[in-house]
Amino acid sequence: MTEDLYPTRASGRPSLIDRADPVVYGTAADGPLTADDLARFDTAGFHAFDQLIEPGEVAAFHTELQRLREDPALKDDERTVFEPTSRHLRSVFEVHKVSEVFARLLHDPRVVGPARQILGSEVYIHQSRVNFKPGLAGNTFYWHSDFETWHAEDGMPRMRAVSLSIAITENLDSNGPLMIMPGSHRTFVTCPGETPENHYLSSLRSQEVGTPDPDSLRKLGDEHGIRQFTGAPGSATMFDCNSMHGSNSNITPFPRSNVFVVFNSVENTLVEPFGAASLRPPFIAAREFTPVR
Amino acid sequence: MTEDLYPTRASGRPSLIDRADPVVYGTAADGPLTADDLARFDTAGFHAFDQLIEPGEVAAFHTELQRLREDPALKDDERTVFEPTSRHLRSVFEVHKVSEVFARLLHDPRVVGPARQILGSEVYIHQSRVNFKPGLAGNTFYWHSDFETWHAEDGMPRMRAVSLSIAITENLDSNGPLMIMPGSHRTFVTCPGETPENHYLSSLRSQEVGTPDPDSLRKLGDEHGIRQFTGAPGSATMFDCNSMHGSNSNITPFPRSNVFVVFNSVENTLVEPFGAASLRPPFIAAREFTPVR
Repeated sequence: MTEDLYPTRASGRPSLIDRADPVVYGTAADGPLTADDLARFDTAGFHAFDQLIEPGEVAAFHTELQRLREDPALKDDERTVFEPTSRHLRSVFEVHKVSEVFARLLHDPRVVGPARQILGSEVYIHQSRVNFKPGLAGNTFYWHSDFETWHAEDGMPRMRAVSLSIAITENLDSNGPLMIMPGSHRTFVTCPGETPENHYLSSLRSQEVGTPDPDSLRKLGDEHGIRQFTGAPGSATMFDCNSMHGSNSNITPFPRSNVFVVFNSVENTLVEPFGAASLRPPFIAAREFTPVR
Repeated sequence: MTEDLYPTRASGRPSLIDRADPVVYGTAADGPLTADDLARFDTAGFHAFDQLIEPGEVAAFHTELQRLREDPALKDDERTVFEPTSRHLRSVFEVHKVSEVFARLLHDPRVVGPARQILGSEVYIHQSRVNFKPGLAGNTFYWHSDFETWHAEDGMPRMRAVSLSIAITENLDSNGPLMIMPGSHRTFVTCPGETPENHYLSSLRSQEVGTPDPDSLRKLGDEHGIRQFTGAPGSATMFDCNSMHGSNSNITPFPRSNVFVVFNSVENTLVEPFGAASLRPPFIAAREFTPVR
C-alpha cells in the first residue's frame, strides 16, 4: 500500500503539514521557463503568462465556448455542471474530449511544455474543463487545495501536478478572477470530515467537505497575502496542485470564462483514494495515464 | 400629489429614463471640493477621497466596529441584519444613533461638507449603517440604484442625495469592494415587479425586487464599464444616489468593513412612497429631517 504523507478527511482537528515533495522537478535546460521563472515558481507556487495564446487565436476559443454553452446535447451530459442557484452553466468537464478545438489547445506545446518542465517528466491530462463564470450570476469557488481533493478522492499519491488556467474572456479585478495565496503550496491543510458518497455531485457546484477551516485560512492569509490574476484573453496562470486558491462571485455583466487543465506526472499516477470509499468518475479524474504527445 | 418623474415597481417591461434632475447643485465657492472635483462628480457620479480620515483616527472606529460586532444587545435589535446564509453580521443600521463614536464621525465637517456642497443646501441623515462584509463569508450586494429603492419604498421625490462609504478596514481588489458604473447616475432604470409587504426584511439581506434586469445591466456595463474602489482605512467614496453600484462576495480572510451614510437635501424630504403600500421603518429611512449641524 502507498504511504499516506498527507492524511485528510479523518476525524479530529485540522492541522497544517509541511510539504514533503519538491515543487519544481525539472531544470531550466528543459525549457521553456527560465531559471528565474522556475525559482519564482518554487517560492510562490505559480507562473503568470501575460500572453500564452495570441489574441488572433483566442477568438476561435471564444466561439467554441459559445457553441458549448448552446449545445443542447451538453445540457443533459453528466460532464456538465450548473451553478448552485440557477440554470447557468458553471463548468463542462473533459473538454479535451468534448471539443476538438480545446483538445488541440490542451495538446499545444505552449500549454504542455511548461508543465512537463516543472514536473520533470512526461505528463498526462488528469482533468480538463471550461469554467464559464457567467456575468451577473457567477458564484464563488471557495478556497481549496486541488491536491487535497485529488489525494483524498482520486488517489493522487504525491504533489507532482500542475494546473493551467487560460483566460478566454478578459479576467478583470471585478469579475471573480483566480486568487492564490502565494507560497501556500508548501503547507498541506488537512480537512476533517468524512467524504460523502457521490460527493462530486454537490462539490463541483459548491464545495463544503474538503475545504479548509477558517482558522487555517486566516493563518495562511496573514502569512502569504493574496494575489489576484487579471489579464487579457490568452493570458494564463500555471500553478502548483497544492496552492490555496479560489475566486469570488461575478456580479459584473462580463463573463469570466477560462479553460482549465491539470497535468499530472506519469510518475505520479493514481492509486486507491486516500480519503473516500469510491472513485470519482473518469471525466473528473482520468485513470488513463497516456502521456500527452 | 408630487409628480412621479421616475415611475418604477409597476407592470410592463423595464425601461431606461433620462435623469431629469441636476447632479451637482452647489459651486466650488461653497468648498471643500474644487471646480474640477465637481465637474468630475457631475460626469462620473462619484468622488474618491484617498484619505478622508487620518490613519491615527481610524483605529478608534475599528475598535468601535468590533464592539458593535460583539454587543449582545445588538444581536436582537431590529437594526441588525445578518448574512443570508449564515449568522454573520451583515449590517447595523442607524449607526449614528447606536454609536456615539460613529455619530461624531458622521457629523464631522469632512464628512458633511462635501455632501452639503454637492447638494447645494443643508442636508440631513436619511440612513446610516456599518457594513461588516466579514472575511470568508461576506455575500454580494447585487447591482442597484439606491434612489430606485428610496423613491419607490421611502418616497424620496427627486435625485438630490449622496452616499458616502468610508473604509474602516482596507478595501482590496479581492475582498468585495464597492463597484460603480461611472456615468450610470444619468439613467434611471425602472424595475418592474410589485414591492412585497415588509420587503426590507429580506431585501437588506439579499435583494431581488428593485434590482435591474440583465439586459439593462449589460447595456449600462458596456456603455460605462466598471470602477472598483480600493483604499486604505480612512479612504472614502461619495457617490450620487442614482449611481448603479454593487459589490462581489468576500471569500478572502480579510473583512471589508465600511461605515456608510446617506445625506439627503432638506429641500428633497420624503413624501408618500411612489411604489410601495407602506413605509419602511425610520431606522432605514429617517422621517426626521433635522439638518446636520
